[in-house]
Amino acid sequence: MDSVVAVDLGGTKLAAAVVDSEGRITERRKIPVERAGVRATAEQIADILRPLSHQRIGLVVPGIYNPGNGTAWAPNLWGHDHVPLRAELERTIPGRRVVIDSDRAGYVMGERWLGVARGIDDVVFVAIGTGIGAGIISGGRLLRGCGDIAGAVGWFALNPEWQESYSHAGCWESESAGPAVARHANTSSAEEAIAAAHTGNAAAQNAVRHAARYLGMGIANIVSLLNPQMVVLGGGLMHGSDLFLDTIREEMLRWAQPVAAQQVRIEITQLGEDAGLLGAAALAFDA
Amino acid sequence: MDSVVAVDLGGTKLAAAVVDSEGRITERRKIPVERAGVRATAEQIADILRPLSHQRIGLVVPGIYNPGNGTAWAPNLWGHDHVPLRAELERTIPGRRVVIDSDRAGYVMGERWLGVARGIDDVVFVAIGTGIGAGIISGGRLLRGCGDIAGAVGWFALNPEWQESYSHAGCWESESAGPAVARHANTSSAEEAIAAAHTGNAAAQNAVRHAARYLGMGIANIVSLLNPQMVVLGGGLMHGSDLFLDTIREEMLRWAQPVAAQQVRIEITQLGEDAGLLGAAALAFDA
Repeated sequence: MDSVVAVDLGGTKLAAAVVDSEGRITERRKIPVERAGVRATAEQIADILRPLSHQRIGLVVPGIYNPGNGTAWAPNLWGHDHVPLRAELERTIPGRRVVIDSDRAGYVMGERWLGVARGIDDVVFVAIGTGIGAGIISGGRLLRGCGDIAGAVGWFALNPEWQESYSHAGCWESESAGPAVARHANTSSAEEAIAAAHTGNAAAQNAVRHAARYLGMGIANIVSLLNPQMVVLGGGLMHGSDLFLDTIREEMLRWAQPVAAQQVRIEITQLGEDAGLLGAAALAFDA
Repeated sequence: MDSVVAVDLGGTKLAAAVVDSEGRITERRKIPVERAGVRATAEQIADILRPLSHQRIGLVVPGIYNPGNGTAWAPNLWGHDHVPLRAELERTIPGRRVVIDSDRAGYVMGERWLGVARGIDDVVFVAIGTGIGAGIISGGRLLRGCGDIAGAVGWFALNPEWQESYSHAGCWESESAGPAVARHANTSSAEEAIAAAHTGNAAAQNAVRHAARYLGMGIANIVSLLNPQMVVLGGGLMHGSDLFLDTIREEMLRWAQPVAAQQVRIEITQLGEDAGLLGAAALAFDA
C-alpha cells in the first residue's frame, strides 16, 4: 500500500511516522528537539528519517512556512528570524520530496482527510491553546494569503475598549486562550482552571464563560466572512470542550450572518494526539 | 476586438453596456427596474439586450447568486425568496452564455482587472453604503463559501455589549454603515452627515470618527484572517473617504496581526459609477 513519512516538528518534540493511504500509522519515532538553529533541526530530521527510505515526506512546523522561498518562521524554535528550512533539508536529506507547511494547515488537511470534516470543501480548523490560530480550506483549497500568514485569527478585534495586553497577543487570544482562562480563574494553568470548573468552582466557571463568549464571537466572524460548512475546534483548551461548546454555539448563532450560521456545524477535532502527524501525511498525499 | 455585454441589475436601475477586453464601455443603456418578480426582471433584461447580439454576457445582481442551482436572492428586488433567475433567462434569452454573480463578486473582479488592485491575487473589496459586504479574491480565486454567501462581513461581532439593533443588520453594519452615521450625526442621510462633517460640525465629526474606528476594527479582522495584499474600499459612504481613511488605517494597524498589517495596502476604489458594469464584464471575460 502507498505510504508516506510524516514529520511533526513541535516546539519541544520531533515526531515521525510512516502513514499509509488509509491514515494508519506505523513505525512511530519521537525525540526531543534541540533548539540550536535550523541546521541542527535539519540534522535531527535527517536522523529521525534515517531508517525510513520513503521518498515522499510531509512536514509541519509550529509557525509559518513560505513555499515561495522555502523559509520558515517559528519563534519557539528559531527565534524571530525567517530560516532557510528547505535549503537545509536539501542538504541533509537530498533527493527526497518534502512538502512543508504550517501545523495549522496540516490540522485542517488532516481533519478533512480522516476526521470529522471528511470530504468537506469549506472547513476551518481553529486551534485554541496557549494561542489561537486557524487553518482554512475554502472551495477545496488551502488559503494562504499574500505572505502565507492567513489564519492569524488570534488578532481578531472583538472589543472596542482597547487594552494594552492586546498589543502582545491580539484581542481574541487575550480574552479566550489558555493563559486568559488561567488568569481569570486564578489558577496556574488552563488545565487546572478546567478541572476547577468541573468541580463547580465559581471563579473558574466564570473564566470559562468569559472565554467561551469571546470564542463564539470570533467563530461567528469566521462564519460570516467565509460561510464554511464546518468549523472544527481543537487545541489544548478544547480538552474541556464540554464546558465551552454550548456557549460557543449560542454566541455564534447570536452574532453570525443568520443564513451562514444555520449552514455551519461546529465540531470538536477527531484527530487527537496524532493531529500533527496525520496533517503532515495529508499534505504529502495531497501534493 | 473581443467584447462582451455587461448587465448591472441594481435595486432601482438596470444598466447594460458593451465592454471590450481593455475595459472600454460603448453602447450604454439604462432603464428603471420594474419590481414585479423574476419573470418581469428576465423580460426586462431581454429587452435591454435586444439590440446587442453578443453571445457572452456578464450579469451582477444586488444580493446572492447560487451557481449550483441557478437561483438568486435579492430582497430589494424579489422579496425574501430564492428565485430561478438562470431558468428565466434561459427562457427569455435562449442560447446565450450568461455568467451571473453577486455585485460584490463583480466589484472585486472589476477592481482587479481595471482598478487599483490590477493583477493582485489576494484582494478584498469592502462595499460600505447602506450595508457592508465584501467580495474576496484569495490566491487568485473568488471565495464563495458553502452557500455562496461568503463576505457577509456586516455581521462581524466587534463589541461584546450586545445591542438589539445588531440582530437586524449585524454589529459592524449597525456601528459603521451609512444609516449609523446619519443617526449619530442627527442628519437625515449619510451624505448630509459627511457634508456637515466637512464644514466642521462636531456631532457629524464624532459620528464619522465612531464609524471609522469600527471600520478599522472590521478591516483588521479581514486582514488577520485572510492576509490580503490589498483591501479596496468602495460604496456610498466612501464618497467621504477623506474623512475616514486616516482613522481606518490607524485602527487597522492597531488591531490586525502585525506582519499582515504591514503587508496590506488600504485603497479607495478606482472604478467609480461603472463598477457594476465593469465587474459584470470581468466575470464574463473570466469565465
